Amino acid sequence: MNRIAAFSIGAASGVVGTYLTLKEREDLKVEPKVFKYGRPDSPVSFHSYSAHSLAYDRARKIPLWVIERLSPHDIKKEITADRHRSNFQPDPFVSPHYSSANTDYFNSGWSRGHMAAAGNYKHDQKCMDDTFYLTNILPQDLDNNIDYWYRLENYCRQLVKKGYSLTVISGPLFLPEERDGKKIISHQVIGDNNVSVPTHLFKILLAEREDEEPPLLGSFIIPNKPVSDCPLRTFQVPLETIEKHSGSHFLQNLQRNKALDLCDKDGCKTISLNELTLYRYAQKLEQATSKEALEKLWAEMESKAIKLDKHITAIYKKKMNEF
Amino acid sequence: MNRIAAFSIGAASGVVGTYLTLKEREDLKVEPKVFKYGRPDSPVSFHSYSAHSLAYDRARKIPLWVIERLSPHDIKKEITADRHRSNFQPDPFVSPHYSSANTDYFNSGWSRGHMAAAGNYKHDQKCMDDTFYLTNILPQDLDNNIDYWYRLENYCRQLVKKGYSLTVISGPLFLPEERDGKKIISHQVIGDNNVSVPTHLFKILLAEREDEEPPLLGSFIIPNKPVSDCPLRTFQVPLETIEKHSGSHFLQNLQRNKALDLCDKDGCKTISLNELTLYRYAQKLEQATSKEALEKLWAEMESKAIKLDKHITAIYKKKMNEF
Repeated sequence: MNRIAAFSIGAASGVVGTYLTLKEREDLKVEPKVFKYGRPDSPVSFHSYSAHSLAYDRARKIPLWVIERLSPHDIKKEITADRHRSNFQPDPFVSPHYSSANTDYFNSGWSRGHMAAAGNYKHDQKCMDDTFYLTNILPQDLDNNIDYWYRLENYCRQLVKKGYSLTVISGPLFLPEERDGKKIISHQVIGDNNVSVPTHLFKILLAEREDEEPPLLGSFIIPNKPVSDCPLRTFQVPLETIEKHSGSHFLQNLQRNKALDLCDKDGCKTISLNELTLYRYAQKLEQATSKEALEKLWAEMESKAIKLDKHITAIYKKKMNEF
Repeated sequence: MNRIAAFSIGAASGVVGTYLTLKEREDLKVEPKVFKYGRPDSPVSFHSYSAHSLAYDRARKIPLWVIERLSPHDIKKEITADRHRSNFQPDPFVSPHYSSANTDYFNSGWSRGHMAAAGNYKHDQKCMDDTFYLTNILPQDLDNNIDYWYRLENYCRQLVKKGYSLTVISGPLFLPEERDGKKIISHQVIGDNNVSVPTHLFKILLAEREDEEPPLLGSFIIPNKPVSDCPLRTFQVPLETIEKHSGSHFLQNLQRNKALDLCDKDGCKTISLNELTLYRYAQKLEQATSKEALEKLWAEMESKAIKLDKHITAIYKKKMNEF
């Protein structure tokens, strides 16, 4: 190899194989003469916030990955944040030239899907606010967002409630599908800024607990569309699959061959669709301000053939006595 | 802004607007606790070679941009390189996990298109060899590769022959098209490594000559398909359009408002399809090793209704006298 110069950020951190590494390069300090008018930069920029960090894709105007670490300590804290006080807004650290805008999402048919979940930061308004920067947001199917993906996020918090410290990495993927014998990647872009709508979303979970060694690892690819009520394990994939598609290298410091399978050890059981619906109606019942509103909600639940439980019946009775 | 840490490579180099810059961040040295198991890296790696530099997209397995600088001094040198001595091969600086392979291209229907053109380095075998690393290659429509794109590359060399020092930046784009009222990006991926086939290619040219101030700037987006014999100006776009789609920032040190329009000043006249065909047949005639081969080539040209010129007729006569 007779290269006159090399500048590399990502090249040295590949996963497998016998390729040359940064250290073997001859001279890292020579700026080639091609850079007389500046070195073109990367379309990827990195940003850190109160509780999460991310890499932002300036071409697709969505994050590449978002990383968080949820601790049992934090999740036990008092609920002090209110998502109604948080506003979706462009990230002030990204040039408007490379930014998405709220207007890109309006009337697009796609919701503004959080990667670092707002619900992870109920104990801290600032941390929650930070998740509303559009660098943490991508166009997500609404049904997916409020149902299956929500249940996955909820599962993360259940793990933390069980005492696990949890590293969570979330992001978009653009996967091919076969058409007429060819592999095609096809996706919508929305708004004036052509914000890319991913075909899939990934979530990587690394759970560790003081009384347990080694850590538990699970990684999942979920289609960005309505997902039926199937087990989370259905979507489990090797971490390397996500790395190959995304081009990013994750959890470099983890001894992967020693990590245990999260779903083998924990079951990866998310709450059921019925439980989620009951949970949502429980919230609505608690917020109801009149007897009529309560009765309307109750009739709605009966018409949807939701399987009621003692908890929701108790809430209903308690609230009825209030009016 | 109350961010506990920020690490940024690209964010500080945006183009326009009043967004905050790197310097305004509070603390660049704190590694957030989320990085306990390593900081996920960027899917973009940077590489420099004997004559060109590039950013490589480990997700799409093709370059993001490739930059070269062609000088009148180099182009006058003796032809010492032979492209038949160069071999397409994976870049040893890229992990096989994130690399394309020659087999991805075989029988794919797509050619291995150079971004830094092999033909720019006829004076140096090493420089030419370096352009054959697959980091400089993307799936290109064959007709586009040998015809319109070749003529654009040839135009670059014509500019250099006129005495211009030329900065050339080339790369792929993935542009949406309208379908049923939606904007859709759709493209093939090929081979086991899912190498992305771009919908378009871009080329940015900055030409400067000692006797001229200021430099000339032209940037072009060419569809990755057969292109009819239309003027290069048809494909001229503002540099900012390429930046917005690619997410990269180019020619940061150039005072853009002072640069002159390359096509206004120079005409952007590429050789015609007829001239290109004549040029190719001239090469074939020169290499012919028998009278029969010469006559066969000549008959082929006549059957294709190619408009012959004095130059090709002279070559034919000269070669006929050799046998």
